[in-house]
Amino acid sequence: MKKIKNALISLSDKTDIEKILNVLNQYSVNIISTGGTYKHIVNLGFQCEEISNYTGFPEMLDGRVKTLHPKIHGGLLADLDKNHHTKSITDHNIQPIDLVIVNLYPFEKKLLENSGFEEMIENIDIGGPSMLRSAAKNFKHVTILPSPKFYQKFIEEMNQNKGATTIEFRKKMAYETFSETAFYDSLISNWMADLHEDRFPHKKIISGKLKEKLRYGENPHQQSAIYEVVTNKPGFKFRQLQGKELSHNNYLDAFNAYSLVNDIDKKSKTCAIIKHNNPCGCSEDQDETKSYLKALKSDPISAFGGIVAVNYSINEKLASEMVKTFYEVILAPKIDDKAKQIFSSKKNLRVLEYDFITNNDSSITVMNNSFLLQDSNCSVTKKEDLKTVTKKQPTEDEINNLIFANQVCKHVKSNAIVIANHQMTLGIGAGQTSRVGSCELATKHASKYFSKEILTSVAASDAFFPFPDGLEILIKAGIKSVIQPGGSVKDQEVIDAANKANISMVFTNLRNFKH
Amino acid sequence: MKKIKNALISLSDKTDIEKILNVLNQYSVNIISTGGTYKHIVNLGFQCEEISNYTGFPEMLDGRVKTLHPKIHGGLLADLDKNHHTKSITDHNIQPIDLVIVNLYPFEKKLLENSGFEEMIENIDIGGPSMLRSAAKNFKHVTILPSPKFYQKFIEEMNQNKGATTIEFRKKMAYETFSETAFYDSLISNWMADLHEDRFPHKKIISGKLKEKLRYGENPHQQSAIYEVVTNKPGFKFRQLQGKELSHNNYLDAFNAYSLVNDIDKKSKTCAIIKHNNPCGCSEDQDETKSYLKALKSDPISAFGGIVAVNYSINEKLASEMVKTFYEVILAPKIDDKAKQIFSSKKNLRVLEYDFITNNDSSITVMNNSFLLQDSNCSVTKKEDLKTVTKKQPTEDEINNLIFANQVCKHVKSNAIVIANHQMTLGIGAGQTSRVGSCELATKHASKYFSKEILTSVAASDAFFPFPDGLEILIKAGIKSVIQPGGSVKDQEVIDAANKANISMVFTNLRNFKH
Repeated sequence: MKKIKNALISLSDKTDIEKILNVLNQYSVNIISTGGTYKHIVNLGFQCEEISNYTGFPEMLDGRVKTLHPKIHGGLLADLDKNHHTKSITDHNIQPIDLVIVNLYPFEKKLLENSGFEEMIENIDIGGPSMLRSAAKNFKHVTILPSPKFYQKFIEEMNQNKGATTIEFRKKMAYETFSETAFYDSLISNWMADLHEDRFPHKKIISGKLKEKLRYGENPHQQSAIYEVVTNKPGFKFRQLQGKELSHNNYLDAFNAYSLVNDIDKKSKTCAIIKHNNPCGCSEDQDETKSYLKALKSDPISAFGGIVAVNYSINEKLASEMVKTFYEVILAPKIDDKAKQIFSSKKNLRVLEYDFITNNDSSITVMNNSFLLQDSNCSVTKKEDLKTVTKKQPTEDEINNLIFANQVCKHVKSNAIVIANHQMTLGIGAGQTSRVGSCELATKHASKYFSKEILTSVAASDAFFPFPDGLEILIKAGIKSVIQPGGSVKDQEVIDAANKANISMVFTNLRNFKH
Repeated sequence: MKKIKNALISLSDKTDIEKILNVLNQYSVNIISTGGTYKHIVNLGFQCEEISNYTGFPEMLDGRVKTLHPKIHGGLLADLDKNHHTKSITDHNIQPIDLVIVNLYPFEKKLLENSGFEEMIENIDIGGPSMLRSAAKNFKHVTILPSPKFYQKFIEEMNQNKGATTIEFRKKMAYETFSETAFYDSLISNWMADLHEDRFPHKKIISGKLKEKLRYGENPHQQSAIYEVVTNKPGFKFRQLQGKELSHNNYLDAFNAYSLVNDIDKKSKTCAIIKHNNPCGCSEDQDETKSYLKALKSDPISAFGGIVAVNYSINEKLASEMVKTFYEVILAPKIDDKAKQIFSSKKNLRVLEYDFITNNDSSITVMNNSFLLQDSNCSVTKKEDLKTVTKKQPTEDEINNLIFANQVCKHVKSNAIVIANHQMTLGIGAGQTSRVGSCELATKHASKYFSKEILTSVAASDAFFPFPDGLEILIKAGIKSVIQPGGSVKDQEVIDAANKANISMVFTNLRNFKH
């Protein structure tokens, strides 16, 4: 238990400080404070001593140096359980400080506002973190409030303990304080890393603010929460318009669905339906509703309970079609008012509007005590990148379908095979340990449900065919053109098999593994 | 260009400082320094002023307050392009400081040594980060070296520019400095989070040190690097004994292989072969070599080019078997000398010895501008957790196989079905958008290669059967007992189907999705 006698207050965000001042006044706590905060406190009608008066040293350099003084930090850092510490501060006429209420220059706000370089630098707080860290280190004696979100708990502590705080509370606040300072410097460090275009720094810091605790994780026996990274860079952001809370798996599927439909040629209207983190249907069309209906038709059984993403606005007609099937989540960059009304009839359906932006950042895979940081796979294959390796050339229509199938294939777990026709997936072979297995899966589905369409269809493979066997399965099923990276030692055998069957094949020289 | 006249040096790690002192001496730079560093510099034969002499304020509180003084921070923070700043420091007899060489108390070292609480707290540096941050903010005028790793570059700068540094260098060092302070506080914050058992903090910081840049990422057109998290908690750590550098995908597969074999009952010898992040074979046995041979037999075609992990020592006999197949990586907790010799004949084969520890931490999935943090899936299903829901009870042997299949199934991408017999996988259906699809995959493989064994086999499903159709595929193929979480609205229909076929089925009440 530690009685609060002397408080130091220095605030950038003055929210709710009056509530604290009332409590401090009630327990006759002396207050010292810096320039702007000092004036604010006095204006609110409370007594307060200015820091420069206490230290005998003026605020200088436009406020850059105010609190960096031994009379402040001696008061924060003295271990009052040690006689020589107590003697030392007494000798130098230093008062122990029991309570520190400090928050920092709004670097985060300036970052989100895309402020200029000079303004960003000026908003790097120096004195604030120093006080926070001194007080947190000496939590045995000092109570520290690094954010207004802790004020209510502090007031309860003070009232419960008649003007004192418990060691548990002070220790907890010390922990919260180091989270604040680590987070603050992570923003500065990442901002500077971007300026230096340093994508693989010596020390990489990933920091996030708790957005919400989720009902559970990937499975009901796992707890989970979602965190938001504070950044001025574009990324996946959405507004939830209606429906139940998003689950852990909803977030994951929604992100993957969004990534897929925004990775396809933006001139076309693209729709993808995702189930268990893999697409079960994807399509392009000039017409919104047709685009959706084609994606659904790809695999209506798997689509049940899936996640639908489009890269275009949802109108009334499309919404009326969508509500005929049970989905977990629907995402679009825009949903018009009439469509919103139609969705509102399905109370549980989660409907999200997202910001339409390019996602060309890095990706991170965390594995226990280490993580892999890599460039996102931003490969886009265009007509001019294709190298025909067979005697037969693909037709213009086939080329369009090859490019479509190839882009979808990027978003299917490896090994991946995608069969497509009329800008619509007919069969998707996902997540197999052998390429032959994925070829079998894709052809089986396409042959069963699209026995006519498969005969003029194309196929994409995320990596090369190590042997002709996988390709031969595709040929046997009726596929007429194939897109793949190439690069196998047996490329010639694979090309020979294609020539023998008189189909065309193009190489992209770009592998698209996704694990 | 900025001429260095006054330097401030305060070091915990004094590595290589003599090199710097020689250069500073050459360009007649004045040095001020703190207690221990001051003595070190003087002992090396260089001139130096003690900080307490300069500030007129003694070091106090066992060194907790040394540099937190306006004569230091005024000298670090003055913007010399502004007349009123220059005037202000002149009025207060403050010298501008042009160079700061500071590194911090070894909190990281103490963390790794699992030091006691008091010692950890005492090793939180306060003055150091304050100086680093002041100098970094004012990089326009101040050169800052936060670590010996930058000394060589600094010496080159000084020699190239005749005692001065460039703005580019100072800006780069400011960035490196904020990376250091962010990283430092991330360690403190995460250590304190663990003490408070706060697994979902308001602000979550994930920080890593660059271990190495990798040849490329998941695909050759993506750059990649691996980072190590500094922590005193157990986790996946290994020593590479031989072979090529690990690739991005090797790391990922190795981690998953390790996770699988260490998630199975430790009394048995477990072996798993992983391909494209999914197991293609897994087995348990009392004999090391048999365990491996069974895992290989599960799917020798997919095993080619895969990653093998075992949870036991590799001896000569086993190594001789392993080198008969081409693998990318082999992992074991221990590899004996004779086995090492055998592996050494395959120069490219990556052989890793890992620390045998439980992995019961949290898992993180980063999605662009947000991340999901959740408990790892540490579910272990034991005999006593099983609830038989059919008329028929599984036999003791079936129960053992059900538990084995269920644990393997946890590590297969959803939807997942694993068929097993004799503690060996016969068929694995992975990554399908429908459960029926996974049932078909698993039964197809098992029926083709294990037509006899499948008739007395068991199957595990990672989630419930929404309809009886998936189960009926398993029954038709000959499976005699099934393990699944249960929980479908149609559970009774599924149970009826099992009863009708006179097979047994048990519920675990634990879903094991893996996406």
